Amino acid sequence: MPKIVDHDKQKRLVAEAALNVIRESGLERATVRRIAEEAGLSVGSMRHYFASQEELFAFCMNLFVERVEKRLAEFELHGPLLHDLKRMLLQFLPVDEERTLEMEVWFSFSAKTLVYPELKRLSLSVQDGLLTASRFALHELVASGMARSGLDVELEAEKLYALVDGLAVHRLMQPERLDVDRIESIIEQHLRSLCVSAD
Amino acid sequence: MPKIVDHDKQKRLVAEAALNVIRESGLERATVRRIAEEAGLSVGSMRHYFASQEELFAFCMNLFVERVEKRLAEFELHGPLLHDLKRMLLQFLPVDEERTLEMEVWFSFSAKTLVYPELKRLSLSVQDGLLTASRFALHELVASGMARSGLDVELEAEKLYALVDGLAVHRLMQPERLDVDRIESIIEQHLRSLCVSAD
Repeated sequence: MPKIVDHDKQKRLVAEAALNVIRESGLERATVRRIAEEAGLSVGSMRHYFASQEELFAFCMNLFVERVEKRLAEFELHGPLLHDLKRMLLQFLPVDEERTLEMEVWFSFSAKTLVYPELKRLSLSVQDGLLTASRFALHELVASGMARSGLDVELEAEKLYALVDGLAVHRLMQPERLDVDRIESIIEQHLRSLCVSAD
Repeated sequence: MPKIVDHDKQKRLVAEAALNVIRESGLERATVRRIAEEAGLSVGSMRHYFASQEELFAFCMNLFVERVEKRLAEFELHGPLLHDLKRMLLQFLPVDEERTLEMEVWFSFSAKTLVYPELKRLSLSVQDGLLTASRFALHELVASGMARSGLDVELEAEKLYALVDGLAVHRLMQPERLDVDRIESIIEQHLRSLCVSAD
């Protein structure tokens, strides 16, 4: 009887192993040998699942894209609007363990995106998600009548997009300086600054 | 007669060679062998200048720190204030060839900063420069009487810091989407949003 192996499931297991190794030792020390060891496979059978390191990394990044998409798909607006929008934007920030681990690895990959086209494409699809979310936030504020008059929606979406990514990088690099409460209050204050004054 | 070699000058030449290789092929392909080739040295004599790759990368990052510090030290306020502050913040953005090359390499290094303490220290010193510049901008706006009343100076400095770094990363990763004019107008609009309305 032939050995039945769920190819896709196995690929996911290898990817999870790769993520563990990357998180523990950094991307440049995540050699095929160490990832194979972590996954409990031989180097030879690793190659059966991923022909190259780039292919493996692309698969890992794709796991993140799926996770972010899943979180956003499950996201529901409950009101009040500012609170919902803040929760939505926090999906893109390293404010809990899962998102911090994801973003640490994503950050490790991101330097490689300047060199590998496939990684760049995946990285841009996460980026697009945040830009889309930023635009959504602005449009919701306008539609609800809460936005200040004369707001340049496209420019403010670009600013919000940059602000969230900047905070993400700062939080990853300087977690002791920028805590989660501070990030939440910055996002909240920023959203409020886009609205007609409550006074 | 002994061969006289200016050790520090030679280290700089090696670092410049390393930067060229990194820019052309990405950090992970910047092997000691290729850098030695670019510098016109043997691998053995490279090791005379830098005992490890981390030491070489730290030296390269230090060159950037020096360059940013030099640009800021030479920076003069000529007025009008908003124009000066914009010019100052643009020192930290990839808006010309020199700064783009610096930041591409810095970006390649930054993923490694999660693993190497010495690189992290240097990276944070560039980051500190931008945070200091952001605080300076806020304090100047307040001192000049241009700032809106009730501005939370420390929070706004943190926001400005994140905004500039976010724009820098977006410009590096999506240069075709975010052009230099757009970046300038976002910075300008943001500074103006901190001021008492001109209307």
